[in-house]
Amino acid sequence: MKPFRLARRAQRLPATLPASHFPTEIDATTVLFDSGFAFPGLFPELGEIARRAVTEHRDETLQYAPAQGQPELRRWIADYMNGDGCLLDADNILITNGAKHAIDLTCRLLVDEGDAIVVTAPMYFTAIPIFRSFGVRFIEVEQDECGIRVDELAKLIENMRRAGDPLPKLIYNVADFHNPSGVTMTLERRRALVELAAEHGICIAEDTPYRRVRFEGADVASLKALDPGGVVLHLGTFSKLISPGLRMGWVAAEKELIARMIGLKSEGGSSPLLQRIIYEFLRSDRFPGHITRVQQTYREHRDHLIACLKRELPDLEFIVPQGGYYVWLRLPAAVDGDELARRAAAAGVNLIPGSRFFAGDAVRHGRNHIRLSYSFATLDQIGTGIKRLAAAYAECSAKQASA
Amino acid sequence: MKPFRLARRAQRLPATLPASHFPTEIDATTVLFDSGFAFPGLFPELGEIARRAVTEHRDETLQYAPAQGQPELRRWIADYMNGDGCLLDADNILITNGAKHAIDLTCRLLVDEGDAIVVTAPMYFTAIPIFRSFGVRFIEVEQDECGIRVDELAKLIENMRRAGDPLPKLIYNVADFHNPSGVTMTLERRRALVELAAEHGICIAEDTPYRRVRFEGADVASLKALDPGGVVLHLGTFSKLISPGLRMGWVAAEKELIARMIGLKSEGGSSPLLQRIIYEFLRSDRFPGHITRVQQTYREHRDHLIACLKRELPDLEFIVPQGGYYVWLRLPAAVDGDELARRAAAAGVNLIPGSRFFAGDAVRHGRNHIRLSYSFATLDQIGTGIKRLAAAYAECSAKQASA
Repeated sequence: MKPFRLARRAQRLPATLPASHFPTEIDATTVLFDSGFAFPGLFPELGEIARRAVTEHRDETLQYAPAQGQPELRRWIADYMNGDGCLLDADNILITNGAKHAIDLTCRLLVDEGDAIVVTAPMYFTAIPIFRSFGVRFIEVEQDECGIRVDELAKLIENMRRAGDPLPKLIYNVADFHNPSGVTMTLERRRALVELAAEHGICIAEDTPYRRVRFEGADVASLKALDPGGVVLHLGTFSKLISPGLRMGWVAAEKELIARMIGLKSEGGSSPLLQRIIYEFLRSDRFPGHITRVQQTYREHRDHLIACLKRELPDLEFIVPQGGYYVWLRLPAAVDGDELARRAAAAGVNLIPGSRFFAGDAVRHGRNHIRLSYSFATLDQIGTGIKRLAAAYAECSAKQASA
Repeated sequence: MKPFRLARRAQRLPATLPASHFPTEIDATTVLFDSGFAFPGLFPELGEIARRAVTEHRDETLQYAPAQGQPELRRWIADYMNGDGCLLDADNILITNGAKHAIDLTCRLLVDEGDAIVVTAPMYFTAIPIFRSFGVRFIEVEQDECGIRVDELAKLIENMRRAGDPLPKLIYNVADFHNPSGVTMTLERRRALVELAAEHGICIAEDTPYRRVRFEGADVASLKALDPGGVVLHLGTFSKLISPGLRMGWVAAEKELIARMIGLKSEGGSSPLLQRIIYEFLRSDRFPGHITRVQQTYREHRDHLIACLKRELPDLEFIVPQGGYYVWLRLPAAVDGDELARRAAAAGVNLIPGSRFFAGDAVRHGRNHIRLSYSFATLDQIGTGIKRLAAAYAECSAKQASA
């Protein structure tokens, strides 16, 4: 048999099945600081809602359904976002199979092979292969404690304009409790970003998984709430509000863009059963208390992780995040994050080295970072995990000192 | 604000929201012969399974899960296909969000912009925009009562080889109860297709939604069961086996291809909750009886539709399908299927004109076809719908006669 010729995007991918990674696949004694798994203690009781969804709502939930999503759920999302400063109706909402699917649809809408997109350095690493599969060129922009450096981005755009180069199609960012840096953009910086994007006709994809996972301080207006005329595609998810296993999120955008994204949403519609389960939980009187519990629990996790880090690893620098799931740690310049991650895994604590969070060449940014997620582990596991990490770190440092 | 520049694939799409189409959106007095909606009387009772999925299996079903899919469900699918003549294990299976998602992933795996793919004329119309969004060139091949004309395809391929043109990347086909033609490929034709594809290194995507919806006659070996060495990607779905609202299907292929498709499956994994619900129903003692009921019910629907057609519309020619959901009707050459569909809709019966089933220029194939689905309507509605269709047809014929 003559072998196939694969598409270019597929040729770049591994031909071996992925290694074990998910909680159901990993020995329970390993501490998982790697991915942003939800804390199992926060999974809501959905038994009665699920039962009724497939019985009382059977003709809706077991049948084909519109690709845009269930009208009541889209109405709920529009109202929810309007309570957060937006001006939307149900037609501005497209239901997606999680926020990653929304990133994919954003690329389908905007990106041709060879187009440039703007990302932060570091950035949400799971989005990198999605963007890469569309053949994008990455333009990396640094962040400071106020968020993405809009002044640097303005200079880059100005240089492209002068050189006659096509401008980027998209600016992708997590404005609230950035993954992995933990930074939240200031209002002033948000305004500057939206203005710059609108001036040049560059779409902003605002990815907001952690927006409600705030532990302290006041909300800052979302980019969508500051949107002067449809420059922002707002990507939301129920993974952090309810459960990641439901695989459900949304895009909020202008109707004309939603219409085209429906045409590009080729999977035959998101499951109406999952949408019914989500909607019934959202509109129940349990939802507000659930969000409060999410915030309290992850705040306790963060506080305990920070306390353990200060005690066990006083060398490491980090910004304390005001919300979200992650702490981004800067190691001394000579310590390699990849090596630390390998030694930590051998010691029974999984984490992700900083090098994986750069879309461009990680060497340019230094390899001396790691990201820790405090979402999944229990308080006890956080204590154990940081002790194991400290031992792995001591090995790396000793090797470095003897080199 | 400066407007965006959209991707080429998005520029071709409508900027207005789609019209009402789904059962929840349509007045109940309209008879739906258009899409392959499931018969609501066949939806299984899943209340207890759904309740237990989100309670007893909570840590699995509400958490992130592997993109390849739940191992027990993949094992079940491999066994199910092995019972149908294949030789697969769980690693050969990738869970997808329905078979359309599997078509999309097949394109991601194989198709670069400008590549050619082979399709039947007519073909499954919903796949056309999916393929088109990847910028394919369509090569249309006719069918006869034995299935796709492999002799014609062999000539086309030979001509391409002689001209030094790149060969097609993919042959897409529905071998069992073809949508829309109703034709089932003979064993001999299947063997010839698989041999031709293997000889030239052209992947076959075998889409099998209706394979178990057989009313009479013996199964013919699937293309995958005849696969000499991994040339066939087999696309399956639970939409016709259990329920389309669950939005769950699969790809069966060589492990190396599955590994790459996992990398291209960018939505963050299919819902583990839906997978658990499906798996528990499949392994219950109710599943075999459910399939029998599916076959009996749709056979009754087909028989009644055929009887009504023979009585009310004796002019129209069709092949009686041995399974599946559809009858493909040939109208007299002068009757326009688009016009008939418009008049039928005005008379309260929705159907899809034949012109929508051609990836290339429909004019070349004639516009004198329509497709009727007998899956969703009740027996009474089938009778009413064919009466309304006959009245609409009489209007078209009268107009034709007076022209």
